[in-house]
Amino acid sequence: IDAAAHAGAVERNTQLTKPPAALGRLEDVAQWYAGWRGDARPKIHAPQIIVFAANHGVAAQGVSAFPPEVTEQMVLNFQHGGAAINQLARAAGAHLDVHALELDRPTMDFTQGPAMSEVDVVAALAAGWDAVRLDADLLVVGEMGIGNTTSAAALAAALIGGDAADWTGRGTGVDNAGLANKIRVVAEGLALHQGQGDGVETLRRLGGRELAAMAGAIARARSLRIPVILDGFICTAAAACLEYTMKTALDHCIAGHLSAEVAHGRMLQALDKEPLLELGLRLGEASGGALAISIVKAALECHSGMATFAEAGVSGA
Amino acid sequence: IDAAAHAGAVERNTQLTKPPAALGRLEDVAQWYAGWRGDARPKIHAPQIIVFAANHGVAAQGVSAFPPEVTEQMVLNFQHGGAAINQLARAAGAHLDVHALELDRPTMDFTQGPAMSEVDVVAALAAGWDAVRLDADLLVVGEMGIGNTTSAAALAAALIGGDAADWTGRGTGVDNAGLANKIRVVAEGLALHQGQGDGVETLRRLGGRELAAMAGAIARARSLRIPVILDGFICTAAAACLEYTMKTALDHCIAGHLSAEVAHGRMLQALDKEPLLELGLRLGEASGGALAISIVKAALECHSGMATFAEAGVSGA
Repeated sequence: IDAAAHAGAVERNTQLTKPPAALGRLEDVAQWYAGWRGDARPKIHAPQIIVFAANHGVAAQGVSAFPPEVTEQMVLNFQHGGAAINQLARAAGAHLDVHALELDRPTMDFTQGPAMSEVDVVAALAAGWDAVRLDADLLVVGEMGIGNTTSAAALAAALIGGDAADWTGRGTGVDNAGLANKIRVVAEGLALHQGQGDGVETLRRLGGRELAAMAGAIARARSLRIPVILDGFICTAAAACLEYTMKTALDHCIAGHLSAEVAHGRMLQALDKEPLLELGLRLGEASGGALAISIVKAALECHSGMATFAEAGVSGA
Repeated sequence: IDAAAHAGAVERNTQLTKPPAALGRLEDVAQWYAGWRGDARPKIHAPQIIVFAANHGVAAQGVSAFPPEVTEQMVLNFQHGGAAINQLARAAGAHLDVHALELDRPTMDFTQGPAMSEVDVVAALAAGWDAVRLDADLLVVGEMGIGNTTSAAALAAALIGGDAADWTGRGTGVDNAGLANKIRVVAEGLALHQGQGDGVETLRRLGGRELAAMAGAIARARSLRIPVILDGFICTAAAACLEYTMKTALDHCIAGHLSAEVAHGRMLQALDKEPLLELGLRLGEASGGALAISIVKAALECHSGMATFAEAGVSGA
């Protein structure tokens, strides 16, 4: 973070024509963004949304309400502009990129062994790293992958602690029997892989290609000083793999929203992230992050566009 | 509300390419909007934001951290594009209108008698009624008026119940002594005017021109089937005057945000409105409502723009 730009933004904020702190969270967001961009008075012109799609070996264990072929069908839907994220990207004025990661080659079932080989996880991290546009000034990453709330729950439990039932929710909407099955699958994964390495090694063992790609993109964004809005449960789990590898790895990230997936709030708490929105979403696809783009953009429009008391000739308090 | 359009929107929602209810609050918002517009698949093209400004007799009692001339100075700031609402309106793609209501003629101090005569309150209601654009398809109303959180607190207490201290907050930022003084002023207003008539009569006695104008605009929007996003504490108090005159008067309104003014949540609860956003704003000027426009727009973009399972060839659950 650029201390001078951040200090400049803090100082500018005190002069804007509003009572102190009257824009609440928007003020914090603007100052955080200014610090990361190295500019005390920036605006947002080129937000990018990336959706990574991949398939999961654990899907064969019946952990989702939807069949695995839906991953590819939804990728086609993204490409044809019919999904929620297409509408939300357009509404937010963001560039949307979709990367399908070897859909015909699901990860291994993590109850049997590591989900990915070292070669596979590195390839997925690199796919994410390479997907970030050099001219982006705000990044949202999201995912599509039938079975991936199971993977995210296992990652959260392995990294943060607690047991399978604490982290496993209904995802796209499994029933009670489906939830019990999902908890069993997560518990088996944990028994096999917990405590076997750092965040990235845990990602290799319990994650998936789209989770690794999100982690790669988040890391790349930091190297480019591009602030990131985290999406929901799965995106946050991918991000957690970075934080549990290196503390402060997510300082350039804010939480876009609190999803309806029950354990998301607990995960955000562990990462010390306060969500901007709480709208009961549980879709993935970067949808909650995309909605938050408008809020972050608005924060910067106010911060960088408002008149100061002196400029406007308005009396102070 | 148009029952056929609402039912059509509910039915369409079940067919969109997402798990049931995965868009959470956005789905409810889209269906509510469709019902009020009489169109099962509408989008938002012409949101309007109106800021009404007026001066308050009670400001002379030192209830605000800012001097009364700031009302007019801020109107000039609105006209020159320097205020927060100018940036937020532009970011939301909304048309902004500003109406200054007889700034050189403050209302009467309500601790001495009714704030407005019958002629005055009718003129202010009519100014609001006439300010709504006939082609608007979403309306946000907001205000500027030094002293008006005092007026709003008095209205809330008179309409909803409880005493002055329950409803009186720090507004633009008064200190402890200022808050105690403000509570005294509200209590004196209550003693003089509580129980003297319906919501509109209470508005006349304890409100102000900008509050009456907001109420007039909200009523006009209903007659034009234009859904309304309520802003913060003062806007909600103005709206409450309608609800306490005629139950269901606010069915075409949603709460844009929960403000940092302490009693706003209690007021929304009394009106049975759940806020879309909670960002710690306490600015007024329609700022929170303006931020919520992007969320409501996005809800309709998803609802009306997404492909159905059949259109996209995606397998259901």
